Amino acid sequence: MHPLIFQSDFGLCDGAVCAMYGVACTVDPDIKIFDLTHEIPQYDIWEASYRLIQTINYWPAESVFVSIVDPTVGSKRKSIVAKTNNDNYIVTPDNGTLTHVKRLLGIKEVRIIDETVNRMPNSGESYTFHGRDVYAYTGARLASSVISFEEVGPLYEVDKIVELPILEPVLTDNEVSGDIDVLDVRYGSLWTNISRNIFSKLNIAYGDKVEVTISTNTRTVYRNVMVYEKSFASVNVGEPLLYINSLDCVAIAINQGNFAKAYNIGTGINWHISFQKY
Amino acid sequence: MHPLIFQSDFGLCDGAVCAMYGVACTVDPDIKIFDLTHEIPQYDIWEASYRLIQTINYWPAESVFVSIVDPTVGSKRKSIVAKTNNDNYIVTPDNGTLTHVKRLLGIKEVRIIDETVNRMPNSGESYTFHGRDVYAYTGARLASSVISFEEVGPLYEVDKIVELPILEPVLTDNEVSGDIDVLDVRYGSLWTNISRNIFSKLNIAYGDKVEVTISTNTRTVYRNVMVYEKSFASVNVGEPLLYINSLDCVAIAINQGNFAKAYNIGTGINWHISFQKY
Amino acid sequence: MHPLIFQSDFGLCDGAVCAMYGVACTVDPDIKIFDLTHEIPQYDIWEASYRLIQTINYWPAESVFVSIVDPTVGSKRKSIVAKTNNDNYIVTPDNGTLTHVKRLLGIKEVRIIDETVNRMPNSGESYTFHGRDVYAYTGARLASSVISFEEVGPLYEVDKIVELPILEPVLTDNEVSGDIDVLDVRYGSLWTNISRNIFSKLNIAYGDKVEVTISTNTRTVYRNVMVYEKSFASVNVGEPLLYINSLDCVAIAINQGNFAKAYNIGTGINWHISFQKY
Repeated sequence: MHPLIFQSDFGLCDGAVCAMYGVACTVDPDIKIFDLTHEIPQYDIWEASYRLIQTINYWPAESVFVSIVDPTVGSKRKSIVAKTNNDNYIVTPDNGTLTHVKRLLGIKEVRIIDETVNRMPNSGESYTFHGRDVYAYTGARLASSVISFEEVGPLYEVDKIVELPILEPVLTDNEVSGDIDVLDVRYGSLWTNISRNIFSKLNIAYGDKVEVTISTNTRTVYRNVMVYEKSFASVNVGEPLLYINSLDCVAIAINQGNFAKAYNIGTGINWHISFQKY
Repeated sequence: MHPLIFQSDFGLCDGAVCAMYGVACTVDPDIKIFDLTHEIPQYDIWEASYRLIQTINYWPAESVFVSIVDPTVGSKRKSIVAKTNNDNYIVTPDNGTLTHVKRLLGIKEVRIIDETVNRMPNSGESYTFHGRDVYAYTGARLASSVISFEEVGPLYEVDKIVELPILEPVLTDNEVSGDIDVLDVRYGSLWTNISRNIFSKLNIAYGDKVEVTISTNTRTVYRNVMVYEKSFASVNVGEPLLYINSLDCVAIAINQGNFAKAYNIGTGINWHISFQKY
Repeated sequence: MHPLIFQSDFGLCDGAVCAMYGVACTVDPDIKIFDLTHEIPQYDIWEASYRLIQTINYWPAESVFVSIVDPTVGSKRKSIVAKTNNDNYIVTPDNGTLTHVKRLLGIKEVRIIDETVNRMPNSGESYTFHGRDVYAYTGARLASSVISFEEVGPLYEVDKIVELPILEPVLTDNEVSGDIDVLDVRYGSLWTNISRNIFSKLNIAYGDKVEVTISTNTRTVYRNVMVYEKSFASVNVGEPLLYINSLDCVAIAINQGNFAKAYNIGTGINWHISFQKY
């Protein structure tokens, strides 16, 4: 029995997630169910994609993720299962949810779910809840080895899956720039797409000062100098810092404060951030 | 070992739910625990009742639900276990929580919990947390077969359990009317008590237009024409539609918007909705 | 396999908690994971401490709690595992999180986590997420008996662990006073540090009236008379009452209302409350 991990934008206020659990338990009463999160902002495929890459490397091989942020349920968008380079599976609509995993981890194979066999019996008249009727059902059958990956359905070319636009960080002589991918929500820290590796080209050491500039559209939202440290405890409470986050990328925060709220910072490819040695 | 599924209005901010998990794990370390939701609005028995019928049919037989929305804990309200027509169990105060399950699924038998045997040892001085001391304890013993259904306590007449008032939908020549039972909370869609079956008497086909009227008390809150479609993807982003929801009832929504917030729509038997072919 | 129970201030919106689950499942695929709560207010060690004592007594011996409210991650604060008097374990930064458990339940032994052996392989370059790299990893190894308590690391003196300041309730001839430890969040009830035992010295019986005074700093926030009852159902809806809560301490509430919101009441040792027989 392999772990079955759910992600969605359903929230936990109503019965949608529990209906999926029930479908999975009906497939196999010994199923092991976990949640990634059900608090993805509604319809936010980008964030769903990011949360997968944030977590999938910590799970053992053959774990099955079911991710349902599916604003176009009922359209011709495909339902697929991806097998990743670390041999985990992701069951998802083909709408961009695999963007980060494909780029940063890699995908070996993709199969299209054959709904003639991989759809919960007697659910044919329901058109709005594929999460329950198709994805939870297929994910549970895969996690409990009722079906093999091959039995999901026909192969689909990895190159053809939908990807969201992503910007690459840019390195010049004395500056690296990128975007703010996502927030560490509860603490308001900014997580960038700039890896430790690229940042290291600036030869900035712990304790050094860095000039940080944040802009969106044509507006500069923040420009100031802060220190680069190993962790929050190296600065005073209330002081900003630059650090390497738990995904090995550059992040900035206010120690025990909330950087995003302090300066009204958002996320996505329209939020640019750059670093210079000071 | 049968699944044990908790529902409450406790929220997940404090230790109440975890104390119940602990009681269940003490009964049997192999217990399989799941959550329906703990975000039922405080004291809202109607919504607790609805969430049970929304989910129970997806669980295998002999699953045990423990539902604790219990505003009158400490009163003479009974503590009961119902056996449903699909052979699942619901442990709950007898306060209306079984309203929808009784009407739409059916209840075979009800037993009153005999607290002289089905109460956590050494909990006799606590009068405010029956969820932990009686319901979680009894539910876990039932799910792990420490007790049989018969050992819960004496039989009680199904006819006598407390039911909340429910309105039936009304069909006339060219109109069907009912109420707004509940929201699909995260998306703001309105779920009515009008089944696909009744709605079909209006002979409205996919793609047809429908006039929708919503009123509460003496006030008309919404009257407009929208299209009847299989799923959200058939209309534009931001466009309203009428569809059959995942419980096989009529629902209305704004594609990728929030209908309830857009028009300040509430739920319950004072929120009337009617449909006419346009 | 012993239960592994997580608590944190991470929230459930992003992937942090799921990464910890994954680490635990990688240690042992049969691990049994539960959550206490992840909604501890950020950096609020006091509340983390309180939620542990609220729940730990309901769990079977050898349960492993992992509690991560860790504002000084990266400092020299120690990482420890405590063995409680009821033979449960708590994995936590040594920052005051054990305050209530030490005083009210008692701690037998404390060991410092030896990170040379008890740290997730290949996590050495990450300085900001000990919850994942050290605590979840060590907790899972302890719960699944991969390591014994002795293998956590060297003994540390119980007397030396960090404790938050706590006030003891004070009893005089006709009055008992203490502080408001915490809220029953969802219902807005006030939970005091005054045990049933001390309160009983005032010889107040069910149905008697009590004068309640609440003050903070030099300001009296509330002074009024209410009835002492077994449970909420003994008073009218909307009426205040004094009762013994599920932790066997004195609490006050408004039946089906929210006392804390009604009078803007906070928690902590600066929020004083006193009771007199009326």
